[in-house]
Amino acid sequence: MAETTHFMDLALAEAQAASFRDEVPIGAVLVLDGRVIARSGNRTRELNDVTAHAEIAVIRMACEELGQERLTGADLYVTLEPCTMCAAAISFARIRRLYYGANDPKGGAVESGVRFFNQPTCHHAPEVYSGMAEMESAEILRGFFQGKRGE
Amino acid sequence: MAETTHFMDLALAEAQAASFRDEVPIGAVLVLDGRVIARSGNRTRELNDVTAHAEIAVIRMACEELGQERLTGADLYVTLEPCTMCAAAISFARIRRLYYGANDPKGGAVESGVRFFNQPTCHHAPEVYSGMAEMESAEILRGFFQGKRGE
Repeated sequence: MAETTHFMDLALAEAQAASFRDEVPIGAVLVLDGRVIARSGNRTRELNDVTAHAEIAVIRMACEELGQERLTGADLYVTLEPCTMCAAAISFARIRRLYYGANDPKGGAVESGVRFFNQPTCHHAPEVYSGMAEMESAEILRGFFQGKRGE
Repeated sequence: MAETTHFMDLALAEAQAASFRDEVPIGAVLVLDGRVIARSGNRTRELNDVTAHAEIAVIRMACEELGQERLTGADLYVTLEPCTMCAAAISFARIRRLYYGANDPKGGAVESGVRFFNQPTCHHAPEVYSGMAEMESAEILRGFFQGKRGE
Protein backbone atom coordinates (compact mmCIF):
# COMPACT_ATOMS: atom_id res chain seq x y z
CA MET A 1 0.00 0.00 0.00
CA ALA A 2 2.84 2.40 0.84
CA GLU A 3 4.33 1.60 -2.55
CA THR A 4 1.16 2.34 -4.52
CA THR A 5 0.80 5.63 -2.59
CA HIS A 6 4.36 6.52 -3.52
CA PHE A 7 3.73 5.93 -7.23
CA MET A 8 0.50 7.93 -7.13
CA ASP A 9 2.43 10.77 -5.46
CA LEU A 10 4.81 10.73 -8.42
CA ALA A 11 1.83 10.93 -10.78
CA LEU A 12 0.49 13.90 -8.79
CA ALA A 13 3.88 15.60 -9.11
CA GLU A 14 3.72 15.09 -12.89
CA ALA A 15 0.24 16.63 -12.92
CA GLN A 16 1.52 19.62 -10.98
CA ALA A 17 4.48 19.99 -13.33
CA ALA A 18 2.10 19.87 -16.32
CA SER A 19 0.12 22.71 -14.77
CA PHE A 20 3.26 24.87 -14.62
CA ARG A 21 3.75 24.24 -18.37
CA ASP A 22 0.17 25.38 -18.94
CA GLU A 23 -0.95 21.88 -19.85
CA VAL A 24 -4.16 20.39 -18.47
CA PRO A 25 -2.71 18.94 -15.24
CA ILE A 26 -2.96 15.19 -15.46
CA GLY A 27 0.01 12.99 -14.60
CA ALA A 28 0.87 9.35 -15.13
CA VAL A 29 3.54 6.89 -14.01
CA LEU A 30 4.23 3.45 -15.43
CA VAL A 31 5.76 0.83 -13.17
CA LEU A 32 7.20 -2.56 -14.04
CA ASP A 33 8.63 -4.94 -11.41
CA GLY A 34 8.56 -2.17 -8.80
CA ARG A 35 10.56 0.22 -10.99
CA VAL A 36 9.30 3.43 -12.63
CA ILE A 37 9.87 2.98 -16.36
CA ALA A 38 8.11 6.14 -17.56
CA ARG A 39 6.53 9.25 -16.04
CA SER A 40 4.87 12.17 -17.76
CA GLY A 41 2.21 14.79 -17.57
CA ASN A 42 -0.16 15.71 -20.33
CA ARG A 43 1.92 17.05 -23.26
CA THR A 44 -0.65 17.96 -25.91
CA ARG A 45 0.37 21.63 -26.11
CA GLU A 46 4.10 21.06 -25.86
CA LEU A 47 4.09 18.48 -28.66
CA ASN A 48 1.18 19.87 -30.69
CA ASP A 49 -0.17 16.36 -30.43
CA VAL A 50 -3.80 15.88 -29.53
CA THR A 51 -3.05 12.26 -28.63
CA ALA A 52 -0.31 13.10 -26.09
CA HIS A 53 -2.39 12.54 -22.98
CA ALA A 54 -0.31 11.55 -19.94
CA GLU A 55 -1.27 7.87 -20.27
CA ILE A 56 -0.40 7.67 -23.99
CA ALA A 57 2.84 9.55 -23.32
CA VAL A 58 4.04 7.05 -20.71
CA ILE A 59 2.93 4.05 -22.77
CA ARG A 60 4.93 5.35 -25.76
CA MET A 61 7.96 6.15 -23.62
CA ALA A 62 7.89 2.73 -21.97
CA CYS A 63 7.43 0.85 -25.27
CA GLU A 64 10.41 2.76 -26.67
CA GLU A 65 12.50 2.20 -23.53
CA LEU A 66 11.78 -1.52 -23.49
CA GLY A 67 11.82 -1.97 -27.27
CA GLN A 68 8.50 -3.78 -27.28
CA GLU A 69 4.94 -3.15 -28.34
CA ARG A 70 3.26 -4.43 -25.22
CA LEU A 71 3.70 -3.77 -21.52
CA THR A 72 2.47 -7.03 -20.06
CA GLY A 73 2.77 -6.95 -16.28
CA ALA A 74 3.14 -3.17 -16.04
CA ASP A 75 0.99 -1.03 -13.75
CA LEU A 76 -0.23 2.44 -14.64
CA TYR A 77 -0.91 5.21 -12.13
CA VAL A 78 -2.83 8.23 -13.42
CA THR A 79 -4.45 11.13 -11.61
CA LEU A 80 -7.70 11.18 -13.61
CA GLU A 81 -9.99 8.47 -14.94
CA PRO A 82 -8.70 7.64 -18.44
CA CYS A 83 -10.67 8.86 -21.47
CA THR A 84 -11.94 6.59 -24.25
CA MET A 85 -8.72 6.89 -26.27
CA CYS A 86 -6.49 6.14 -23.30
CA ALA A 87 -8.62 3.29 -21.96
CA ALA A 88 -8.30 1.53 -25.31
CA ALA A 89 -4.55 2.18 -25.45
CA ILE A 90 -4.20 0.75 -21.91
CA SER A 91 -6.02 -2.36 -23.08
CA PHE A 92 -3.89 -2.71 -26.25
CA ALA A 93 -0.70 -2.31 -24.19
CA ARG A 94 -1.79 -5.16 -21.91
CA ILE A 95 -1.39 -3.08 -18.74
CA ARG A 96 -1.88 -5.31 -15.70
CA ARG A 97 -3.27 -2.86 -13.14
CA LEU A 98 -4.71 0.61 -13.51
CA TYR A 99 -4.76 2.92 -10.48
CA TYR A 100 -6.48 6.25 -10.93
CA GLY A 101 -7.45 9.26 -8.87
CA ALA A 102 -10.46 11.42 -9.67
CA ASN A 103 -13.47 10.26 -11.66
CA ASP A 104 -14.30 12.02 -14.92
CA PRO A 105 -18.02 11.67 -15.65
CA LYS A 106 -17.73 14.04 -18.64
CA GLY A 107 -14.89 12.35 -20.47
CA GLY A 108 -13.92 9.17 -18.63
CA ALA A 109 -14.32 5.70 -20.07
CA VAL A 110 -13.70 3.33 -17.17
CA GLU A 111 -16.52 3.85 -14.68
CA SER A 112 -18.07 6.59 -16.83
CA GLY A 113 -19.01 6.86 -20.50
CA VAL A 114 -18.38 3.80 -22.63
CA ARG A 115 -16.93 1.74 -19.72
CA PHE A 116 -14.56 0.26 -22.25
CA PHE A 117 -13.11 -2.50 -20.09
CA ASN A 118 -16.58 -4.03 -19.75
CA GLN A 119 -17.28 -4.12 -23.48
CA PRO A 120 -17.15 -7.12 -25.82
CA THR A 121 -14.74 -5.24 -28.13
CA CYS A 122 -12.24 -4.92 -25.25
CA HIS A 123 -9.95 -7.94 -25.49
CA HIS A 124 -7.80 -7.25 -22.42
CA ALA A 125 -8.90 -5.44 -19.27
CA PRO A 126 -6.58 -4.37 -16.46
CA GLU A 127 -7.48 -4.72 -12.81
CA VAL A 128 -8.85 -1.30 -11.83
CA TYR A 129 -8.31 0.56 -8.55
CA SER A 130 -9.97 3.97 -8.43
CA GLY A 131 -10.21 6.74 -5.89
CA MET A 132 -6.50 6.90 -4.94
CA ALA A 133 -5.54 10.50 -4.14
CA GLU A 134 -8.91 11.46 -5.58
CA MET A 135 -9.15 14.80 -3.75
CA GLU A 136 -5.62 15.95 -4.60
CA SER A 137 -6.02 14.93 -8.24
CA ALA A 138 -9.29 16.82 -8.58
CA GLU A 139 -7.93 19.83 -6.68
CA ILE A 140 -5.01 20.26 -9.09
CA LEU A 141 -7.44 20.30 -12.03
CA ARG A 142 -9.89 22.62 -10.27
CA GLY A 143 -7.14 25.08 -9.41
CA PHE A 144 -5.87 25.05 -12.98
CA PHE A 145 -9.23 25.78 -14.57
CA GLN A 146 -10.09 28.41 -11.96
CA GLY A 147 -6.82 30.15 -12.81
CA LYS A 148 -7.74 29.97 -16.52
CA ARG A 149 -11.12 31.59 -15.94
CA GLY A 150 -9.42 34.31 -13.94
CA GLU A 151 -6.98 35.15 -16.74
CA MET B 1 -16.91 11.56 -55.78
CA ALA B 2 -13.89 10.99 -58.01
CA GLU B 3 -11.83 12.89 -55.45
CA THR B 4 -12.92 10.80 -52.47
CA THR B 5 -12.21 7.64 -54.49
CA HIS B 6 -8.74 8.96 -55.24
CA PHE B 7 -7.99 9.57 -51.54
CA MET B 8 -9.29 6.15 -50.55
CA ASP B 9 -7.05 4.63 -53.24
CA LEU B 10 -4.10 6.35 -51.53
CA ALA B 11 -5.21 4.86 -48.20
CA LEU B 12 -5.38 1.41 -49.83
CA ALA B 13 -1.85 1.90 -51.16
CA GLU B 14 -0.68 2.72 -47.61
CA ALA B 15 -2.38 -0.46 -46.34
CA GLN B 16 -0.63 -2.48 -49.02
CA ALA B 17 2.71 -0.88 -48.17
CA ALA B 18 2.14 -1.69 -44.47
CA SER B 19 1.59 -5.32 -45.42
CA PHE B 20 5.01 -5.42 -47.13
CA ARG B 21 6.57 -4.14 -43.88
CA ASP B 22 4.80 -6.97 -42.02
CA GLU B 23 2.46 -4.54 -40.27
CA VAL B 24 -1.26 -5.24 -40.01
CA PRO B 25 -2.31 -3.68 -43.34
CA ILE B 26 -4.45 -0.67 -42.58
CA GLY B 27 -3.83 2.66 -44.29
CA ALA B 28 -4.96 6.22 -43.69
CA VAL B 29 -4.80 9.56 -45.47
CA LEU B 30 -5.59 12.98 -44.03
CA VAL B 31 -6.82 15.69 -46.37
CA LEU B 32 -7.27 19.40 -45.77
CA ASP B 33 -8.58 21.80 -48.41
CA GLY B 34 -8.21 19.14 -51.09
CA ARG B 35 -4.55 18.50 -50.25
CA VAL B 36 -3.05 15.38 -48.66
CA ILE B 37 -1.34 16.54 -45.46
CA ALA B 38 -0.41 13.11 -44.07
CA ARG B 39 -0.50 9.49 -45.22
CA SER B 40 0.57 6.40 -43.34
CA GLY B 41 -0.01 2.77 -42.74
CA ASN B 42 -0.11 1.06 -39.39
CA ARG B 43 3.35 1.46 -37.79
CA THR B 44 3.03 -0.34 -34.45
CA ARG B 45 5.86 -2.78 -35.17
CA GLU B 46 8.19 -0.32 -36.86
CA LEU B 47 7.92 2.17 -34.00
CA ASN B 48 7.41 -0.29 -31.14
CA ASP B 49 4.38 1.83 -30.35
CA VAL B 50 1.11 0.11 -29.62
CA THR B 51 -0.70 3.42 -30.26
CA ALA B 52 0.73 3.89 -33.78
CA HIS B 53 -2.38 2.82 -35.67
CA ALA B 54 -2.64 4.38 -39.15
CA GLU B 55 -5.20 6.96 -37.99
CA ILE B 56 -3.15 8.06 -34.97
CA ALA B 57 -0.02 8.19 -37.14
CA VAL B 58 -1.59 10.57 -39.68
CA ILE B 59 -3.21 12.72 -36.99
CA ARG B 60 0.17 13.16 -35.28
CA MET B 61 1.97 13.83 -38.55
CA ALA B 62 -0.61 16.42 -39.57
CA CYS B 63 -0.60 18.15 -36.17
CA GLU B 64 3.19 18.36 -36.39
CA GLU B 65 3.13 19.56 -40.00
CA LEU B 66 0.56 22.26 -39.25
CA GLY B 67 1.90 23.14 -35.80
CA GLN B 68 -1.49 22.83 -34.20
CA GLU B 69 -3.31 20.53 -31.83
CA ARG B 70 -6.53 20.25 -33.80
CA LEU B 71 -7.36 19.47 -37.39
CA THR B 72 -10.65 21.30 -37.80
CA GLY B 73 -11.96 20.91 -41.34
CA ALA B 74 -9.72 17.95 -42.18
CA ASP B 75 -11.07 14.71 -43.65
CA LEU B 76 -9.72 11.28 -42.79
CA TYR B 77 -9.75 8.28 -45.13
CA VAL B 78 -8.98 4.92 -43.56
CA THR B 79 -9.32 1.40 -44.91
CA LEU B 80 -10.86 -0.16 -41.77
CA GLU B 81 -13.45 1.02 -39.26
CA PRO B 82 -11.51 2.85 -36.53
CA CYS B 83 -11.06 1.18 -33.15
CA THR B 84 -12.07 2.75 -29.83
CA MET B 85 -8.71 4.51 -29.36
CA CYS B 86 -8.71 5.95 -32.87
CA ALA B 87 -12.37 6.98 -32.83
CA ALA B 88 -11.72 9.05 -29.71
CA ALA B 89 -8.56 10.56 -31.22
CA ILE B 90 -10.54 11.48 -34.36
CA SER B 91 -13.07 13.22 -32.15
CA PHE B 92 -10.41 15.09 -30.15
CA ALA B 93 -8.70 16.22 -33.36
CA ARG B 94 -12.00 17.69 -34.62
CA ILE B 95 -11.88 15.77 -37.90
CA ARG B 96 -14.71 16.97 -40.15
CA ARG B 97 -15.44 13.84 -42.20
CA LEU B 98 -14.45 10.22 -41.73
CA TYR B 99 -14.47 7.89 -44.73
CA TYR B 100 -13.74 4.26 -44.06
CA GLY B 101 -13.66 0.95 -45.90
CA ALA B 102 -14.36 -2.36 -44.22
CA ASN B 103 -16.38 -2.77 -41.03
CA ASP B 104 -14.70 -4.26 -37.96
CA PRO B 105 -17.30 -5.89 -35.73
CA LYS B 106 -14.58 -7.32 -33.45
CA GLY B 107 -12.65 -4.13 -32.76
CA GLY B 108 -14.43 -1.21 -34.40
CA ALA B 109 -16.02 1.65 -32.48
CA VAL B 110 -18.04 3.58 -35.06
CA GLU B 111 -20.86 1.28 -36.22
CA SER B 112 -19.61 -1.55 -33.99
CA GLY B 113 -18.63 -1.82 -30.34
CA VAL B 114 -18.97 1.35 -28.26
CA ARG B 115 -20.21 3.46 -31.24
CA PHE B 116 -18.23 6.30 -29.73
CA PHE B 117 -19.57 9.11 -31.92
CA ASN B 118 -23.08 8.46 -30.61
CA GLN B 119 -22.09 8.62 -26.92
CA PRO B 120 -22.66 11.50 -24.49
CA THR B 121 -18.91 11.53 -23.64
CA CYS B 122 -18.12 12.24 -27.32
CA HIS B 123 -17.97 16.03 -27.66
CA HIS B 124 -17.30 16.23 -31.39
CA ALA B 125 -18.43 13.73 -34.00
CA PRO B 126 -17.33 13.74 -37.65
CA GLU B 127 -19.68 13.04 -40.53
CA VAL B 128 -19.21 9.35 -41.28
CA TYR B 129 -19.15 7.66 -44.70
CA SER B 130 -18.56 3.94 -44.56
CA GLY B 131 -18.30 1.18 -47.12
CA MET B 132 -15.87 2.91 -49.54
CA ALA B 133 -13.56 0.33 -51.09
CA GLU B 134 -14.91 -2.09 -48.54
CA MET B 135 -14.03 -5.23 -50.52
CA GLU B 136 -10.47 -4.16 -51.36
CA SER B 137 -9.80 -3.06 -47.77
CA ALA B 138 -11.03 -6.35 -46.35
CA GLU B 139 -9.19 -8.35 -49.02
CA ILE B 140 -5.82 -6.81 -48.11
CA LEU B 141 -6.38 -7.78 -44.46
CA ARG B 142 -7.62 -11.26 -45.34
CA GLY B 143 -4.63 -11.92 -47.57
CA PHE B 144 -2.25 -10.74 -44.85
CA PHE B 145 -3.65 -12.97 -42.13
CA GLN B 146 -3.93 -15.95 -44.48
CA GLY B 147 -0.24 -15.51 -45.27
CA LYS B 148 0.52 -15.37 -41.53
CA ARG B 149 -1.32 -18.62 -40.84
CA GLY B 150 0.60 -20.21 -43.71
CA GLU B 151 3.99 -19.22 -42.28
